[in-house]
Amino acid sequence: MAARIPVGLVGVTGYTGMELTRVLAGHPGLELVRATSRSEAGKSLRSLYPFLAGPGDLGRMGALTVTQPDPEDLAAACKLVFLAVPHKTAQEIAAQLIRRGVKVVDLSADFRLRDRTTYEQWYATPHTQADLLAEAVYGLPELYRAQMRRARLIANPGCYPTSAILGLAPALGAELIHTDDIVIDAKSGTSGAGRKASVGTLFCEVADSFRAYNLTKHRHTPEIEQEVSLLAGAKVALSFNTHLLPIGRGILSTIYTRLKTPMTQAEVQAVFEARYKDEPLVRVLPAGTLPETRWVRGTMFCDIGVAVDERLGRLIILSAIDNLCRGASGQAVAGANLMLGLPEAEGLPLAPLMP
Amino acid sequence: MAARIPVGLVGVTGYTGMELTRVLAGHPGLELVRATSRSEAGKSLRSLYPFLAGPGDLGRMGALTVTQPDPEDLAAACKLVFLAVPHKTAQEIAAQLIRRGVKVVDLSADFRLRDRTTYEQWYATPHTQADLLAEAVYGLPELYRAQMRRARLIANPGCYPTSAILGLAPALGAELIHTDDIVIDAKSGTSGAGRKASVGTLFCEVADSFRAYNLTKHRHTPEIEQEVSLLAGAKVALSFNTHLLPIGRGILSTIYTRLKTPMTQAEVQAVFEARYKDEPLVRVLPAGTLPETRWVRGTMFCDIGVAVDERLGRLIILSAIDNLCRGASGQAVAGANLMLGLPEAEGLPLAPLMP
Amino acid sequence: MAARIPVGLVGVTGYTGMELTRVLAGHPGLELVRATSRSEAGKSLRSLYPFLAGPGDLGRMGALTVTQPDPEDLAAACKLVFLAVPHKTAQEIAAQLIRRGVKVVDLSADFRLRDRTTYEQWYATPHTQADLLAEAVYGLPELYRAQMRRARLIANPGCYPTSAILGLAPALGAELIHTDDIVIDAKSGTSGAGRKASVGTLFCEVADSFRAYNLTKHRHTPEIEQEVSLLAGAKVALSFNTHLLPIGRGILSTIYTRLKTPMTQAEVQAVFEARYKDEPLVRVLPAGTLPETRWVRGTMFCDIGVAVDERLGRLIILSAIDNLCRGASGQAVAGANLMLGLPEAEGLPLAPLMP
Amino acid sequence: MAARIPVGLVGVTGYTGMELTRVLAGHPGLELVRATSRSEAGKSLRSLYPFLAGPGDLGRMGALTVTQPDPEDLAAACKLVFLAVPHKTAQEIAAQLIRRGVKVVDLSADFRLRDRTTYEQWYATPHTQADLLAEAVYGLPELYRAQMRRARLIANPGCYPTSAILGLAPALGAELIHTDDIVIDAKSGTSGAGRKASVGTLFCEVADSFRAYNLTKHRHTPEIEQEVSLLAGAKVALSFNTHLLPIGRGILSTIYTRLKTPMTQAEVQAVFEARYKDEPLVRVLPAGTLPETRWVRGTMFCDIGVAVDERLGRLIILSAIDNLCRGASGQAVAGANLMLGLPEAEGLPLAPLMP
Repeated sequence: MAARIPVGLVGVTGYTGMELTRVLAGHPGLELVRATSRSEAGKSLRSLYPFLAGPGDLGRMGALTVTQPDPEDLAAACKLVFLAVPHKTAQEIAAQLIRRGVKVVDLSADFRLRDRTTYEQWYATPHTQADLLAEAVYGLPELYRAQMRRARLIANPGCYPTSAILGLAPALGAELIHTDDIVIDAKSGTSGAGRKASVGTLFCEVADSFRAYNLTKHRHTPEIEQEVSLLAGAKVALSFNTHLLPIGRGILSTIYTRLKTPMTQAEVQAVFEARYKDEPLVRVLPAGTLPETRWVRGTMFCDIGVAVDERLGRLIILSAIDNLCRGASGQAVAGANLMLGLPEAEGLPLAPLMP
Repeated sequence: MAARIPVGLVGVTGYTGMELTRVLAGHPGLELVRATSRSEAGKSLRSLYPFLAGPGDLGRMGALTVTQPDPEDLAAACKLVFLAVPHKTAQEIAAQLIRRGVKVVDLSADFRLRDRTTYEQWYATPHTQADLLAEAVYGLPELYRAQMRRARLIANPGCYPTSAILGLAPALGAELIHTDDIVIDAKSGTSGAGRKASVGTLFCEVADSFRAYNLTKHRHTPEIEQEVSLLAGAKVALSFNTHLLPIGRGILSTIYTRLKTPMTQAEVQAVFEARYKDEPLVRVLPAGTLPETRWVRGTMFCDIGVAVDERLGRLIILSAIDNLCRGASGQAVAGANLMLGLPEAEGLPLAPLMP
Repeated sequence: MAARIPVGLVGVTGYTGMELTRVLAGHPGLELVRATSRSEAGKSLRSLYPFLAGPGDLGRMGALTVTQPDPEDLAAACKLVFLAVPHKTAQEIAAQLIRRGVKVVDLSADFRLRDRTTYEQWYATPHTQADLLAEAVYGLPELYRAQMRRARLIANPGCYPTSAILGLAPALGAELIHTDDIVIDAKSGTSGAGRKASVGTLFCEVADSFRAYNLTKHRHTPEIEQEVSLLAGAKVALSFNTHLLPIGRGILSTIYTRLKTPMTQAEVQAVFEARYKDEPLVRVLPAGTLPETRWVRGTMFCDIGVAVDERLGRLIILSAIDNLCRGASGQAVAGANLMLGLPEAEGLPLAPLMP
Repeated sequence: MAARIPVGLVGVTGYTGMELTRVLAGHPGLELVRATSRSEAGKSLRSLYPFLAGPGDLGRMGALTVTQPDPEDLAAACKLVFLAVPHKTAQEIAAQLIRRGVKVVDLSADFRLRDRTTYEQWYATPHTQADLLAEAVYGLPELYRAQMRRARLIANPGCYPTSAILGLAPALGAELIHTDDIVIDAKSGTSGAGRKASVGTLFCEVADSFRAYNLTKHRHTPEIEQEVSLLAGAKVALSFNTHLLPIGRGILSTIYTRLKTPMTQAEVQAVFEARYKDEPLVRVLPAGTLPETRWVRGTMFCDIGVAVDERLGRLIILSAIDNLCRGASGQAVAGANLMLGLPEAEGLPLAPLMP
């Protein structure tokens, strides 16, 4: 086997960091050679994650010593670095790495919004890297594949936006729907809330319950509106609202739209199938089949189903992803693949864990 | 203690039958004296439900022998009978009992739709009891309390309709919203699917997953539209869609509407609070607090929260109930209380099981 | 209705405090008039627990203002106080209250172990209230009912010990088993881990998984051994080991013992039924039926089943409780009932939430 | 890439059949060319399992047409066939295939017990293939690797036995423990109960609950005793008991044993590490770390932890596997690998899905 390309991971203690180790453990072209964490430096990865043990990559990864995030060291050792740190923290590290010639995939929100003012408004913090913001490519392969291949910096899309944008793109591209009456009712598994100690995400607070949160003000709203507007060719404001599911992984977005003209289920189905027929990582389900989060659990797929309500002239789009894989770390690896000249889907998990 | 009023239950093997035993076990004014099931007749209730044992009512109930559903026997023994059998089956039994002077609360869909044609269309079966259909009272106390007090036959509301109608009533009553753009995104716990053996509701098919089902064609649609139209004073068609939650009990409906004129959160909040201020079994949550299904778990409450999206001129209403208690058996008992001259909330569980 | 007896609760923010509000909300003889918390003083209970709203007791409780724990104030207002604070903290408060003539039910471990040295060894902290330790009554009604009636201070049993001791008592009382080969394999729902922010009990760390913890060194070991030794009339050391279940409430203890002489299932069953035939809060399940945690969910019952392995001469005892109700707050209320001259089971929930 | 070896699957509708498709989808050396089911013949695999779609193997598998189980056809198309049908059914099919020169891995219990009488007693059905029974190799690589390489018929071990035997083997091999006092308290995820419609395994009957089942009479008992006796060099009877976990996948066995002579944690740890140091698919966890089912979720690993109770002279062994992967289909593929001259771990999933 040819030598694998060395990559690094800044921020290994969260669920996206954890998921990156899983995806990279099965990747034939990339090798994790650095993993950093301010709080855990000096320990072996295995001491954090006892499941990183065994033969081959798993064992090698587990033996890796966690280091302090040092741009010099990362640049010397890695061709590409994944940033799995909170927004704001990522800005500075990204700049330091790119300055040293390292490619970066940033999993935070820091480079997703093209408009700096919008960023500063929704994230309530200044953006200090205007140049990089202008240069960053939004890492959704179905929309920006060509640009991603040439990018130095990829802004990895948010989990909810991934599902919402991929669900809406065919309807917007074919101008099927009114753009002033879009409602996205999104539901996410609890891993989306991260791995920090908090009463609100304790097992006993989440299990056997269901609730909405952040209604009308979720930070993924401007990100979705940005891409939807570009797809629609006009500024779109939409209603995006989120709920917390008592499951680990998975997002299902139910997207309510109104058709411009009456269409049948079959006609809409054909539009969606045509849009994604060459896409390896999107599956338009057969008519009559609706996505389930378990069918994409642990995978890179976005599964999409459509239901036309002919009585009301409405189109309902369902879009399911695994928030940690397609919605974060797996998509980051797809981005890395493209940046590094590897096949887009290389090393990405496709078979779901069922049941 | 005064003698309790004897009541019967036709159909004891499903979750609504099971829940009725729980609610009646704590009821000071009603006593379950008959429980019927075609398949289990002859057994003790305790042999079906080992938890029906212990001192007092629980033990008494557990010792009850399940009988064949015999109208003569039921009429001789009971002043009121709950029907927890599938729709279509309920029609005939209801007629037989009412003819014999017994009051009936029917938990099936058989008497909910005022328009016989609509019933026959959505339920694909003829309705054989037109007279009773005309007489039946839709058993939502917040709308029909007075009529329920005088009723011989109550059509107990569906679980989804209970949450949707109570959520929409204040906005419709105060004419806050456009009635031609209502979307109800409803999510239900799996107990709503009933207690019959089926691959689709096995633990391994439901747990750790989430999915939509029956989009655009759920049978609760005409029931919701009927009551919403009455509240709006005009025929309303709305988009009602359902999802399956990996929880036992609980429905959360997220209801998307558009405001006729711009309003603040506080103004909408005031309208909702005013509408329900004298209602014992509806709680409008304080501004900024959104309902969670666990807060109503095992109880009769409908918890409602509102979120105004001033940017978009939208009002989002959240409505949570326990689908088995408020959405079925508890509400049936509230109906029985009213029919029998007891206080509406007598014997109904109000403190949720938390966590 | 006669005036209810005023009681207080020190420590309202944990799951046992929360559960006490639920149990007291349905109690006809006790009224919660004080609820304290160092961190939340000044807020209404409802602002902590939005489900404490509605008519009657729930609303009254929700309107209660949380206070600082002040012995003077508690003594002036309450006849009895429940302590739901961590061990060590409870010692001092208990003493202050008892000195002022208030009865106390302590839900911590501070007064459970008769031997001060054992306490200090397992809990790694000095015990400063030797007199009270000598006076405290271990609050398991099935063993100490008479003493509880006269007690000023009840040490409320631990959750695991409640299930283990009640499971073993009949076999020990009738001298059926060898006492030098007892293994208790106990499994608890996650509410047993408390309500503090912690990565290890996050939903994503507990759901869809199972693990043992604290093997060979759980602090409930000496408590179980103390009571088992008293029942056996000789010092018993046993193997007690614990596991974490991905459920909210419930403990199931599987207790492995060896019969002294060969016995049939029926013979053992008869011994267990005889032991508990007059006990209102223990249910020996019929032969062939094994307990399930859901059958006791939210209730005060301890459900017990026995299985004799005639091939091996072993007796396996299964004992299920709700760890928060029978294993903590419900049992505390039973203790309070006895101390205050009320019927033991008054106000205690008996009908489980099923499903 | 060299052509892959064609294999078949008889019985595709259960969870083990489903899991085989997942494992084979990622296998570089085997290709699924036949999938049979009496009830589903004629449909595409994708119409049964919508997640079998996408690029590469997944899509190819999904396009496969399910056929009737025809030995001629299977023999013509496959070099090896997996049997994922109920016991008794498997006997005949295995014979028909082996007669035609096809290698067989049988996932049922039909060829696991060497003693025909024991089989007929525990499974209450005659065994019609005595010759094959004598020839079959018990497919646990850690015990029978060499024989598996030469086998025509592998009896794939049961899920519980896999975890129990691998947990006990080091202690038995080094003669650390008394063999007349072994208690296995085993807990399994619900996928172990299979994918047939049944009230007992509905979501609402399993979720948020826990229970024992089949105490003292589980059919895996003789299988465990057979292998444990061989390891101990003497007939062993042990106590094996099972519980149902509200999780999808995973078995944790807590094995209680008594040490022959006092040993420290470190000494026992060393024995276990030595026994498995060259095994690729068993991980002895570091001292102080206990296995969790999630760490093996979706993988082929058996994770083992040990806890010495020096106070009592007891050794507690914990052994965790994924019941569908290591406990069924993954182990079947390991067996196939060995029979076909491929590396034992080829194509087997090793990185767990976390969280």
